[in-house]
Amino acid sequence: MNSMPGKIAVIGAGAIGSFYGAKLAKAGYDVEFLTRSGARKLKNNAVNIKSIWGNFKIKLNAFSDTKFMSKADLIIISTKVLPSIDYKKILTPIVKKDSIILCIQNGMNVEEKLSRIFPKNTILGGLAFTCINRISPVKILHLDYGLIKIAPLLKENFKTASLLTEIFNKTGIQTEAVKNLRKMRWQKLLWNIPFNSLSVVCGGITTDKIVDSKTLTALASDLMKETLEIAKAEGIIIPGKIIQTMITTTQKMNPYKTSMLLDYENKREMEIETIVGEPLRIAKKLKVKTPVLDTIYKMLLFRGNAG
Amino acid sequence: MNSMPGKIAVIGAGAIGSFYGAKLAKAGYDVEFLTRSGARKLKNNAVNIKSIWGNFKIKLNAFSDTKFMSKADLIIISTKVLPSIDYKKILTPIVKKDSIILCIQNGMNVEEKLSRIFPKNTILGGLAFTCINRISPVKILHLDYGLIKIAPLLKENFKTASLLTEIFNKTGIQTEAVKNLRKMRWQKLLWNIPFNSLSVVCGGITTDKIVDSKTLTALASDLMKETLEIAKAEGIIIPGKIIQTMITTTQKMNPYKTSMLLDYENKREMEIETIVGEPLRIAKKLKVKTPVLDTIYKMLLFRGNAG
Repeated sequence: MNSMPGKIAVIGAGAIGSFYGAKLAKAGYDVEFLTRSGARKLKNNAVNIKSIWGNFKIKLNAFSDTKFMSKADLIIISTKVLPSIDYKKILTPIVKKDSIILCIQNGMNVEEKLSRIFPKNTILGGLAFTCINRISPVKILHLDYGLIKIAPLLKENFKTASLLTEIFNKTGIQTEAVKNLRKMRWQKLLWNIPFNSLSVVCGGITTDKIVDSKTLTALASDLMKETLEIAKAEGIIIPGKIIQTMITTTQKMNPYKTSMLLDYENKREMEIETIVGEPLRIAKKLKVKTPVLDTIYKMLLFRGNAG
Repeated sequence: MNSMPGKIAVIGAGAIGSFYGAKLAKAGYDVEFLTRSGARKLKNNAVNIKSIWGNFKIKLNAFSDTKFMSKADLIIISTKVLPSIDYKKILTPIVKKDSIILCIQNGMNVEEKLSRIFPKNTILGGLAFTCINRISPVKILHLDYGLIKIAPLLKENFKTASLLTEIFNKTGIQTEAVKNLRKMRWQKLLWNIPFNSLSVVCGGITTDKIVDSKTLTALASDLMKETLEIAKAEGIIIPGKIIQTMITTTQKMNPYKTSMLLDYENKREMEIETIVGEPLRIAKKLKVKTPVLDTIYKMLLFRGNAG
């Protein structure tokens, strides 16, 4: 891809994939969507987007299997990160040797794993700082924020990340290119680890319950400290004052159900491994002690019927 | 007290106090009971004891305040251990200078705290290894086991512990005198800490759910390891193989609701401080690191609306 991607594939039409994919489609790009559950509904109906960036309706081009889809210049992966998903099988029909793959997903080592399957492709990581609900496959509610940060897995691909950032910004998606992918992911994990985990293991509680409790705030802080130690062990220094910033920010937020809590309540598979298990495996490899994270991980596995 | 206690006071007519107190009353001892909630019912009705040691009915002498009770030769404390209970106020009306005080209670530092209030009295600690349910103030169900272990707070009082053991055994209560009070209490805590705590913080689960889960069994084992470290720091060596014994024993037990879980489910104050908080304060004083116990304690305080 040198300038504009001719064909875009969006893998996973959840809240994130549907919203950003629809924005690209509205801007005139040729976007195809993979969605297991919503394909039939999307084929017959336009999607209704209510967004703080402006409402619109659009017909999306949805498929239930990538074997019916075109080879893509840009592939946006926006599925949950679950051990059960076979990316090799899903992506092979649509990957070309110069396809760019952008993972807008949670957790750690997402891009690294993909690059082992598609070592010749440019892999980028994305994080969405936003509040979007998918009410149904054809009803998307974009309530707040919306920034996407994009960083390359390999430093030499920063140019591609910047180019994509420009393209996204032109379509009205606020986007920022970032140099250090792992630093970006650790910073996001600093919030995701404590708040996703505690919202589930403390019995299904919204974020306000965590920051309103003195002891759970202390526990969230313990988890963040251990996370900073893991990042530090791989050479990424994030100043400790970020912990208080995260807590203060969360205190100012409206009561919020984390994605892990929503999955737990709806008896769906939770992103335990990408958000907690993977950071723990990095800690183990680097000999960082993480007793609090270990404890919470065990309780999460029990909650997810995986322990 | 040189031989037989003339007057016995039982403070707290829960399952333990009612059953053992009734056994003593049936053997002919003059026993008075303090019970906040059940006094009126006990005044008007005989208590119905169904026990594997033999069923019986008996009228108990119950009071709602110690100011109406006699000075006692032997005081058996069988209340829950809660920070809100004022033992000085409760016991002062019935304590003589030679009253023996026996605490059949959970947790750590129970006798030490009492001896600070009544420094001249002989203080003994008791642990009940039994399964007794109080269905109502007048209906007690003794389902299994029943052994009481008695140990003195001060070594020189082992003779008194032995004497009491003889008296109890004669009334049909299986009793054993033990020399090392703290060792006895640490051994009991080895079970109480993990199983009481996890049954509550993992969302209200019976003991079988803990030992059926690989990760929760590992977590229980982590908690026991830290507990052994605290005991070791105060010079009490308990071999580590006890951990596997505790787990195997619990695997063989019928699904069991811990006392802390029963309190949690019934929205009663839990014995968090005596079972977890006090051991943690000992750990802190002795500079033993207990990150897993710290984590579980924070979650317990949140569950008990104390954090």
